[in-house]
Amino acid sequence: MAQGNPSAGNGIPVAGSPAGAPPGARAQLLETASAIMRDGDVIDISLSELSLRSGLNSALVKYYFGNKAGLLKALLDRDWQAIVTSVDALVEKDGWSPEAKLRRHLWKVVDTFYEVPYLNRLTMRMVRESDDAEARRIADSYLSPIYRAYEQLIGNGVRAGVFREIDPQLFYFTVTGAVDRFFSARLVLKHCFDQDTLTEELRDRYREHTIDIIMAGILAR
Amino acid sequence: MAQGNPSAGNGIPVAGSPAGAPPGARAQLLETASAIMRDGDVIDISLSELSLRSGLNSALVKYYFGNKAGLLKALLDRDWQAIVTSVDALVEKDGWSPEAKLRRHLWKVVDTFYEVPYLNRLTMRMVRESDDAEARRIADSYLSPIYRAYEQLIGNGVRAGVFREIDPQLFYFTVTGAVDRFFSARLVLKHCFDQDTLTEELRDRYREHTIDIIMAGILAR
Repeated sequence: MAQGNPSAGNGIPVAGSPAGAPPGARAQLLETASAIMRDGDVIDISLSELSLRSGLNSALVKYYFGNKAGLLKALLDRDWQAIVTSVDALVEKDGWSPEAKLRRHLWKVVDTFYEVPYLNRLTMRMVRESDDAEARRIADSYLSPIYRAYEQLIGNGVRAGVFREIDPQLFYFTVTGAVDRFFSARLVLKHCFDQDTLTEELRDRYREHTIDIIMAGILAR
Repeated sequence: MAQGNPSAGNGIPVAGSPAGAPPGARAQLLETASAIMRDGDVIDISLSELSLRSGLNSALVKYYFGNKAGLLKALLDRDWQAIVTSVDALVEKDGWSPEAKLRRHLWKVVDTFYEVPYLNRLTMRMVRESDDAEARRIADSYLSPIYRAYEQLIGNGVRAGVFREIDPQLFYFTVTGAVDRFFSARLVLKHCFDQDTLTEELRDRYREHTIDIIMAGILAR
């Protein structure tokens, strides 16, 4: 698996080439980085912790991703690609009403932030720390497709008279902000109220609440 | 003004005592720190930039706040005290319906995040970096009073049959997340879409959108 790895940067295997790396080592590094951020409510990782928790030599980070920044970029890509693919598929789905599609979308947004509560903060950090070209790539690849999906999904519902007149772009902030905030405030709630927001019970309660209030907010009466 | 300043830490004037400091220097340092965070979409400041923009000697930071951490704490206190006072006054206001109070509250939440878009991120940072006692103080002084106000405000509306059955605590996340996200995503939007969210025009559009969708979401039909 050393050959042709698209993430090896210049394509030339560097020192620490994974002769003895287990199959799936690259994916495992990303999954471990994701778990570290989720558990710690952080958007940074130490390579030594990554090595310890994954059981993989940290030289593999250099091999697969070039450096830590490359690893963070690959994680961003992994997480966002899954979201964009899933949202696109939902928008294109035949035979579903705008209301059914929006309910299903809200359901999945809660799932997503439960799984990757660090994603918005990581995205903001990467945009801030990137040059203009990379910031533009992140915007074009991940943020714009989601905006367009909202335009289509909400626009269809408004034209069908099912939804009230709602600005899709502003609505995007309403939804993602409400959901993101709940899960990203995790450690604060833990510190302050001895409450962990990352439990399935609380996820399900917050999901019910969110779908309830957002649908009531957007449905035409 | 050097005597009896409650923020001088141990109360003993330290080196750099503000013999020549202008009146209101302490408030001016806080206001400048706030402006730096707002303009830069950051939750940190450099003392040299603070000195440059305020026109005040950075030794005054040591005098009034002990160090940068003390300055950040004082800023957190300044911003939150204004919010808690205003929310408390609204909840206690006689002769206003729960609906009118909630509309007014949402109006002000948008104003607040427009003025201090850094506040949630700063709060989370301070809680993360504080010891347990200080984290508890922040929670008890600022987060808990807001939760209690939501319980009262929403609870009154639910009991009066004006609001649907909504969990006040979860509703708190819906509101603050939706509003915070819009204004705190500022530099990202600027990078990505050449759009500045911190304009009065966009603030007013987002305010109208937020009040519209949240009120439709909570009002009994």
